[in-house]
Amino acid sequence: MPRAYLDHNATSPLRGPARAKMLDTLRASGNPSSVHAEGRAARALVEAAREKVAALVGGRARNVIFTSGATEALALALSGRWRGPEGAPPRLLLSATEHVAALEGHGFGESAEILPVDASGVLDLATLHAALAGSQGPVLLCLQAANNETGVLQPVAAVAEKVHAAGGLLVCDAVQAAGRIACTFETTDADMLIVSSHKLGGPLGAGALVLREASLTCERPLIRGGGQERGFRAGTENVAAIAGFGAAAEEAAGHRDDEAALAAALREKLEADLLRLAPTATIFGAKTPRLPNTCAFAIPGLAAETALMAFDLAGVALSSGSACSSGKVRRSHVLAAMGVSDDVARGALRASLGWTTTEADVTAFSVALGDILARIGRKTAV
Amino acid sequence: MPRAYLDHNATSPLRGPARAKMLDTLRASGNPSSVHAEGRAARALVEAAREKVAALVGGRARNVIFTSGATEALALALSGRWRGPEGAPPRLLLSATEHVAALEGHGFGESAEILPVDASGVLDLATLHAALAGSQGPVLLCLQAANNETGVLQPVAAVAEKVHAAGGLLVCDAVQAAGRIACTFETTDADMLIVSSHKLGGPLGAGALVLREASLTCERPLIRGGGQERGFRAGTENVAAIAGFGAAAEEAAGHRDDEAALAAALREKLEADLLRLAPTATIFGAKTPRLPNTCAFAIPGLAAETALMAFDLAGVALSSGSACSSGKVRRSHVLAAMGVSDDVARGALRASLGWTTTEADVTAFSVALGDILARIGRKTAV
Repeated sequence: MPRAYLDHNATSPLRGPARAKMLDTLRASGNPSSVHAEGRAARALVEAAREKVAALVGGRARNVIFTSGATEALALALSGRWRGPEGAPPRLLLSATEHVAALEGHGFGESAEILPVDASGVLDLATLHAALAGSQGPVLLCLQAANNETGVLQPVAAVAEKVHAAGGLLVCDAVQAAGRIACTFETTDADMLIVSSHKLGGPLGAGALVLREASLTCERPLIRGGGQERGFRAGTENVAAIAGFGAAAEEAAGHRDDEAALAAALREKLEADLLRLAPTATIFGAKTPRLPNTCAFAIPGLAAETALMAFDLAGVALSSGSACSSGKVRRSHVLAAMGVSDDVARGALRASLGWTTTEADVTAFSVALGDILARIGRKTAV
Repeated sequence: MPRAYLDHNATSPLRGPARAKMLDTLRASGNPSSVHAEGRAARALVEAAREKVAALVGGRARNVIFTSGATEALALALSGRWRGPEGAPPRLLLSATEHVAALEGHGFGESAEILPVDASGVLDLATLHAALAGSQGPVLLCLQAANNETGVLQPVAAVAEKVHAAGGLLVCDAVQAAGRIACTFETTDADMLIVSSHKLGGPLGAGALVLREASLTCERPLIRGGGQERGFRAGTENVAAIAGFGAAAEEAAGHRDDEAALAAALREKLEADLLRLAPTATIFGAKTPRLPNTCAFAIPGLAAETALMAFDLAGVALSSGSACSSGKVRRSHVLAAMGVSDDVARGALRASLGWTTTEADVTAFSVALGDILARIGRKTAV
């Protein structure tokens, strides 16, 4: 039975050009730090990928810091002691709906300040304003461009303006946005952008922290030693993953508008089917701008854990929200921050579309949902 | 022209079974944290590799913490706050010849204590004894099993005995030793072992910190967030690299004795040729047990930078020591710690053999060396 993979926000299948680039790369050998021919060939692969990742976010190649992934990039951004024009920010502000890698992975200890979001999941600008008006020094603010669970977009550029006016720095977690919508230094005005390879159809094992200005310095980067990545990140570069990341970034950027339009159309069909089959369903963040590919929803009486398994058996891969390590469905801190009740949040499911998604996948979703609702007797009840 | 790749200590070419495993894996998709079929398949690949990496070092699968590589594993081991039987060690001891990822990557700030080595590069046990007799609390000691530049082996088990008697913990950097000689929890008695995938013929982008006891806990791991790797290392697992790492670990372990014997024989030929062509050459660490694959040497009057390029042009890939990021030849802290003069150290070259090495590679080395010496008129002078 063909599978309908609707979990691109957890990981997006490897794009053809990325796979091809990796296969080529795996035939080569050489450490990019070595001066011999093998080393120089590896170096060239890394530097070519750096150009492509920079192009994805409208940055400069030399300001791309490759990491093992976005979680590490977030840890680097939020644990290193960065110095901007106003010095090193002594305060960290995080929106309440940031990824757990930001909320738990930062180096500011208990002193990080959490900013609330509204019922749509959008950062509360009044609270931000009050926090920035505090006189305890400039801030480092971390804000997702788009939320992984709901797809809700944040007003990053407007926030950046306020943060900059207060002498602070903005880290934008562009993991879910990059390659899916326009998300660059120009659109966000961020000081640092974080990108993940595998969320845009590149391989696992690569991510990047991209700096807007080369003048931004970090006193104590997270991983130190061999001096790779201009001293910002030590360790032999993962050449194959980086090369694949570059190829995927180029492909995602080149097809972005087409893919976004297709995803939007398919999601519209998915949500229409959903509301037809389950008229009492809630679609989270539906009243605010969202990524075109994400639909987070809950149906009264349908528990997420049961539903996930039933969809999986029917050949449809969904998620209960953020892919956490335990495999268990945990209460979503994102939905909690949006004021969604525990009762409703327990049913939260996520369909996330991507470059592989076809109308047949959406049809498979709708057929499976119909069967599940019929089986639990909800079809008539709702 | 066929190349003679004699730089396995920088990175060892990908073994066939590791490549095959990666190609299989790249066809799959799925985040190991996802509960659906795609996620479970990815999870199974990671867990199968975990068993193989555990077997390589005689440890238990559940105590393997996968990282993006050995540099990150060292940072985790030497920056996390580990609690052993005597609590969290407040002091860090490092041998002077540790890898720069340990010397610069640890989290103990300026308070780390550096232990000297003797002229052969072996840890000075008297200084260790004095350091352990200090009453400032238990220590965390980091010691390479084998040095990357010289191949010199450390008396890890004897050191472990002293460290344990003093209530401390031993981190053994087994990056160059694992898969090349017997290097397990049994042979080292270490509390933590660090292994790199790409040094033993696995892909770049994977490494592991393996704990001897599951009771060892870490209060604040380096990369936090999604709870992967039992909370010791957040971030979506690099499934393809981990799967390749497992395959390479199995292959390296299975062929270890044969490969070691072949490397020893080929190195013997290489060193005999070297001393025949350049009788005044120094072979570093030659008087002490070394890895069978490594030959670090210097020839009076032959500068490393020039020689590296000449060897490269002749089709022979060597290194000037540790593969550092700049591509430049830096003064070796390893040779400096062994008391080698700057003058001699400027000529330090390294040939490191591995699973691909044949007699033809060694012959290519010797022919190239003869040509280089003839060209610079050294052949008659030495």
